[in-house]
Amino acid sequence: LNLIENLAQPNERKILLVILDGLGGLPRNGKTELETAWKPNLDRLAARSGLGLVIPIGPGITPGSGPAHLALWGYDPRQYPVGRGILEALGVGLEVGEDDLCARGNFATVGPDGTIVDRRAKKDGDRMQTELCVQLCAELQRQIPKIEDVEVIIRPGKEHRFVVVFRGPGLAGDLSDSDPGTENVRPLSVRQSSPAAAKSAMIANAFLERCAAVLANREQANSVLLRGWAQRPRLPSLQERYQLNPACVAAYPMYRGLARLVGMTVLDNDGTWAGAIETVRRHKAEYDFFFLHFKELDQAGEDGDFDRKVELIEEFDDEFVPRLIELGFDVLCITGDHSTPALLRAHSWHPVPLLLLSPYVRPQIQVEEFGERACVRGNIGYIAAAELMALLLAHALKLKKFGA
Amino acid sequence: LNLIENLAQPNERKILLVILDGLGGLPRNGKTELETAWKPNLDRLAARSGLGLVIPIGPGITPGSGPAHLALWGYDPRQYPVGRGILEALGVGLEVGEDDLCARGNFATVGPDGTIVDRRAKKDGDRMQTELCVQLCAELQRQIPKIEDVEVIIRPGKEHRFVVVFRGPGLAGDLSDSDPGTENVRPLSVRQSSPAAAKSAMIANAFLERCAAVLANREQANSVLLRGWAQRPRLPSLQERYQLNPACVAAYPMYRGLARLVGMTVLDNDGTWAGAIETVRRHKAEYDFFFLHFKELDQAGEDGDFDRKVELIEEFDDEFVPRLIELGFDVLCITGDHSTPALLRAHSWHPVPLLLLSPYVRPQIQVEEFGERACVRGNIGYIAAAELMALLLAHALKLKKFGA
Repeated sequence: LNLIENLAQPNERKILLVILDGLGGLPRNGKTELETAWKPNLDRLAARSGLGLVIPIGPGITPGSGPAHLALWGYDPRQYPVGRGILEALGVGLEVGEDDLCARGNFATVGPDGTIVDRRAKKDGDRMQTELCVQLCAELQRQIPKIEDVEVIIRPGKEHRFVVVFRGPGLAGDLSDSDPGTENVRPLSVRQSSPAAAKSAMIANAFLERCAAVLANREQANSVLLRGWAQRPRLPSLQERYQLNPACVAAYPMYRGLARLVGMTVLDNDGTWAGAIETVRRHKAEYDFFFLHFKELDQAGEDGDFDRKVELIEEFDDEFVPRLIELGFDVLCITGDHSTPALLRAHSWHPVPLLLLSPYVRPQIQVEEFGERACVRGNIGYIAAAELMALLLAHALKLKKFGA
Repeated sequence: LNLIENLAQPNERKILLVILDGLGGLPRNGKTELETAWKPNLDRLAARSGLGLVIPIGPGITPGSGPAHLALWGYDPRQYPVGRGILEALGVGLEVGEDDLCARGNFATVGPDGTIVDRRAKKDGDRMQTELCVQLCAELQRQIPKIEDVEVIIRPGKEHRFVVVFRGPGLAGDLSDSDPGTENVRPLSVRQSSPAAAKSAMIANAFLERCAAVLANREQANSVLLRGWAQRPRLPSLQERYQLNPACVAAYPMYRGLARLVGMTVLDNDGTWAGAIETVRRHKAEYDFFFLHFKELDQAGEDGDFDRKVELIEEFDDEFVPRLIELGFDVLCITGDHSTPALLRAHSWHPVPLLLLSPYVRPQIQVEEFGERACVRGNIGYIAAAELMALLLAHALKLKKFGA
């Protein structure tokens, strides 16, 4: 990777990377979601593009959204780990400062003897309502705005989940979880694993005590558990690494947050697909790399809704592919961050179809389709996600020759 | 790589590696140079060979000739860097000894105040004539044959470029450039970055002063700039690594020089393709690995001359492929060091078609062509250049079983 950084040189050419989150799938009646969709525009584009398959992390490895996106931008997630607390904080739309400390929280239920009865504070076997989570987080936030010189920021997630960010001087992330990961035992004290985190452990334990005090009169959800402590990783920016001036257009907070971590300017947009493309068009002159994220396919896959995923692909093809082409980028790349087959109702490890349009690709012989199996015959072949940026830069002629 | 070295065992079988420099291309009217060429012999050969594609360095990385060839011989250029000064010296046909110190030189023009007016000594906007470079190098060589106990060897390159080799005791390559890489500033003093290079820095600065004195009365080209200091890399030989007895047949100095760096015997030949094949035939009994290099395709590609590249492939196919087959090698491999698409007029990052003939390959089903896109369907698949030697050795049964 260091090699790519040494070869990168800026020029006027512009790259558009379109991520259809969860694009790859698995067959139903012999065809995947993408293969089932009626998508004449993508198929015509495929016939004059280079095709291939992106392996998100490695064979058999199913990525979360954080590692999957970092890999696509050239940050091998094994080399650049990002703590769960950070990903959760980005996911609920918090801006995380350089020295902030984040953790994931659960509301939980403890019994009279102080041992954990339910790590997820279920009631009559049902998961906690998100509305209750919102209400409890507001109450905690009101009563615990600050601990010593450390500001406390609490944001609700789904069901029993929330995020807490501690903002103040002298914090560090080398902390153990208070969540023991099992029931019928007491919550653990948070302990530092380096001297630098002593203050953080003290603040964390004080926070847990004060939460317990605030929630003490409740039968369910009378305690909180914290885990996944993390500070913002110090990632070299896309500017530094690739001499790019990059922008992000994404509707969901996590992707906007991840993009900021690698130095992208996050552009405002209205959350619609049409609005996203219009935002790219309006700002095209200002940036030379655009990351454009569409979330909806992944959600259909996670819902196990094969037909909805097909519909979304058809809508993307019919309404948006022509507009993407019209934007006139020097390099247009359409792929996904990972597969989300409806069959699995979850992210998966399967390679993701890749389409790359530039004057400098070799189109395929007799491949006139964009699909998982058509891409096997593609001229790009299988490529690790972390190598994709090198390929995009090369097709934009932004990499110097290596050696003489 | 260490694994391959541990498994290598000599035997009587013979390998012929034919490099068509710059072989890979990009389409014009839907077909690449190789796909356009009428080449019945290569196509017939492809139908009974294993096919694949060679990735020279990594996705998106365009190699220079030096790194590209080292990779083909199993030397990953990230692990075995070769300095620019060495490549330039080999390119002008200089033999570089173990302790010699090389640099690339430019004739440049400085103004009366000593600052650089033109780093390339242009006259009325035109680049320097190579004839003038030859003449000035001869004059410098005559007047500066030696500095203290260090012999000075100067060879002209194209236009304003030349190479200087310092030969004597106690030299080292840890030196900074005198070329500041920009104009309107003074040339820099050469400085050592390790104590071992103190003498080298002193010799280099003395050389620069004496050049300036020799050139002082000129209006243009009254100074020289040096950069890319390097000593010969200490590469383990092909003999040591693979138990081979290797020979090189190449017309161009750089490839002959590179081959010597890895221990090949460089055979004399008349510079023609017919002569090269005859040289291999004559010496076949003496060596078990032949590297046969044809430069011309790359030149046609760099000239942007699609039709000339097609013609050269057709000539190679018609006149020389049958003779290569007749040589009766146990393993015959035809590929390139990199692509040089006429469309780009330059080396490129695109994978290079690979053909491997041996009794132990799996030919393809329904592939009867040697071309960039036919090779995508090949049984060898995509392979890194640095892994090719292992494949050649395996097909010559020169690799033992790994483990029991």
